[in-house]
Amino acid sequence: MGASAVNCTIAVDTMGGDKGPTEFIRGLFYALEELKLDCHFTLVGNQRLLERLLKVGKLEGYSDRINIIHSTQVIGMHEKPIQALKSKKDSSMVKAIALLKEQQADAMISCGNTGALMAGGTLRLRQIAGVDRPALGIIVPSKQNPFVLTDVGANPESTPENLVHNAVLGANYAKAALNIANPRVALLTIGTEEGKGNALTNATHLLLQEIDGVINYVGPIEGFQLFDGNVDVVVCDGFVGNVVLKSSEALFGFIGSTIREELVRNVKRKIGAVLSKSAFKDMKTRLGPDQHAGAPLLGLRGNILKAHGSSNYVAIANALRIAQEVVMHDMIDSIGSDINQTNALTTHCDAENAP
Amino acid sequence: MGASAVNCTIAVDTMGGDKGPTEFIRGLFYALEELKLDCHFTLVGNQRLLERLLKVGKLEGYSDRINIIHSTQVIGMHEKPIQALKSKKDSSMVKAIALLKEQQADAMISCGNTGALMAGGTLRLRQIAGVDRPALGIIVPSKQNPFVLTDVGANPESTPENLVHNAVLGANYAKAALNIANPRVALLTIGTEEGKGNALTNATHLLLQEIDGVINYVGPIEGFQLFDGNVDVVVCDGFVGNVVLKSSEALFGFIGSTIREELVRNVKRKIGAVLSKSAFKDMKTRLGPDQHAGAPLLGLRGNILKAHGSSNYVAIANALRIAQEVVMHDMIDSIGSDINQTNALTTHCDAENAP
Repeated sequence: MGASAVNCTIAVDTMGGDKGPTEFIRGLFYALEELKLDCHFTLVGNQRLLERLLKVGKLEGYSDRINIIHSTQVIGMHEKPIQALKSKKDSSMVKAIALLKEQQADAMISCGNTGALMAGGTLRLRQIAGVDRPALGIIVPSKQNPFVLTDVGANPESTPENLVHNAVLGANYAKAALNIANPRVALLTIGTEEGKGNALTNATHLLLQEIDGVINYVGPIEGFQLFDGNVDVVVCDGFVGNVVLKSSEALFGFIGSTIREELVRNVKRKIGAVLSKSAFKDMKTRLGPDQHAGAPLLGLRGNILKAHGSSNYVAIANALRIAQEVVMHDMIDSIGSDINQTNALTTHCDAENAP
Repeated sequence: MGASAVNCTIAVDTMGGDKGPTEFIRGLFYALEELKLDCHFTLVGNQRLLERLLKVGKLEGYSDRINIIHSTQVIGMHEKPIQALKSKKDSSMVKAIALLKEQQADAMISCGNTGALMAGGTLRLRQIAGVDRPALGIIVPSKQNPFVLTDVGANPESTPENLVHNAVLGANYAKAALNIANPRVALLTIGTEEGKGNALTNATHLLLQEIDGVINYVGPIEGFQLFDGNVDVVVCDGFVGNVVLKSSEALFGFIGSTIREELVRNVKRKIGAVLSKSAFKDMKTRLGPDQHAGAPLLGLRGNILKAHGSSNYVAIANALRIAQEVVMHDMIDSIGSDINQTNALTTHCDAENAP
């Protein structure tokens, strides 16, 4: 643990997201009052609006820890990333990224346009030395403890070296966000039944074995083991991770809507549904994204966390909590050190195997 | 429609699968009595055992349509495919594949070792002219009608040409098994948010547009749209398809177990659960695999259908029904014709684009 939370500042792009700045202020209240975060916050957005919301939200008592930076533009959810970044230099997102770049903030979070956030973050902050491509990591619930799945969409065209870096990035995120000292890292592949994996996963498996001292690599797992919770980090390329993430969210919704349809088919079922309603609410709380809503863009020289566009205040508060965790764990320094070791070990292998 | 069901024969590997030949005989009974299949069946397995089971299963009235071929060996679920195929020439699976090869059967189904079935089928039957790699297709439920997902594991290292062939194979399977005249075919990719797709999907998208006369290509879809039911065929490579299929099955189980845990937390919920129990049973019937249990290895010169190792009699009966459908639709001839057209169109493009 390096930084003290008291000296840590989180920049917040309050204008992105489907629910607007009101939800951010509610999230901030929850983060301060319920989650007891003790860092500082710099809110980027419309100053007068934010001041009014802070007053309405009864956050005036925290004025020494909350700072506002005025911005006049907002990047929409469906704007083209590069174009939006260029034309909206006074947007809340661009200004929040700039705070990170200028070391006036230690982390930033946004619920806005993912593509713009990833492009803006990568262009402004650049990668940690030795990291080729950043990776998007998320925390996923399982039958046991939650685990980190990475990459879920930053890099859809991965090399084995990229996947090895994803493993290092994911392990460091699990240490910081899930507070796991020695996370078990697995490689997502397909079964022996159908032939083992593909060229990418097979080459990655060999490289991961070589860096076993840097991370705790426990071997490949298959899709059917994904939610068992026997590992803490699951590594895949951004194409596979994105498809798995989004199809899983879709399936969760589909199962929910099918259950709802079935539960209203007759009176007996309807009564049963009323009596057991709280069970479904609790199930949703356990499996839904609110507890672990911050998805960091790992591998950059700055902590950028993406929260879902439709995040509610609980999700936002938890994203703020995770942002504080990654700062306090000095995640970026730790990644830098692990990547150096990783590249030394894997380059060593290449030299040995060279003709 | 070519073949008459009366002249169609389905070979059944009765010894594979977790539940043994008893479940196959129950499945056969269900297929004949409930689903009213009118084809012939050749059961491959232990003759005395099968004769006894047919007697117990009250299937003696169908003796003119049920034939038994004796086999002495069984390929286990965890045996190495090629080794098992070589050392167990008198196994029920090898002998059932041989019936297809010798045109004594029009289709075969097995619940046994997937790897052995795929390897055995490919080695003995070979691909339809013009098809490079076979693909495993499955039928998946959605918010609307079920759709075909292919490839779910046969070919984890696909070229754009392989994916185009998967589209043709999947479309033909949707025509036969789902009885859809002009199935809407989509390509599974990842969102514009994170950059569009990868090199494989982008190249495939262009090729699929070129063969729009052969299949009804409606464009790319993302993971979050997978269960919407707006398309009839979803095309992906075998790695992605296998991960999506298996992680979806795992998530289905995980959600189910979480709901069960929540429903027994207090007495009120328990009473509610009892009253609404039938809703969950109906949900499982709607979303579970029993209705569409036969996964064909598409692209071979013979109809090989894989059913899940744990298939119950309803799943087996439905796999038999699908086997009869693909034979009656002359699916293999139809694939051959479409692949010829596809290769002509895509080769034409290559020639045009060549320097």
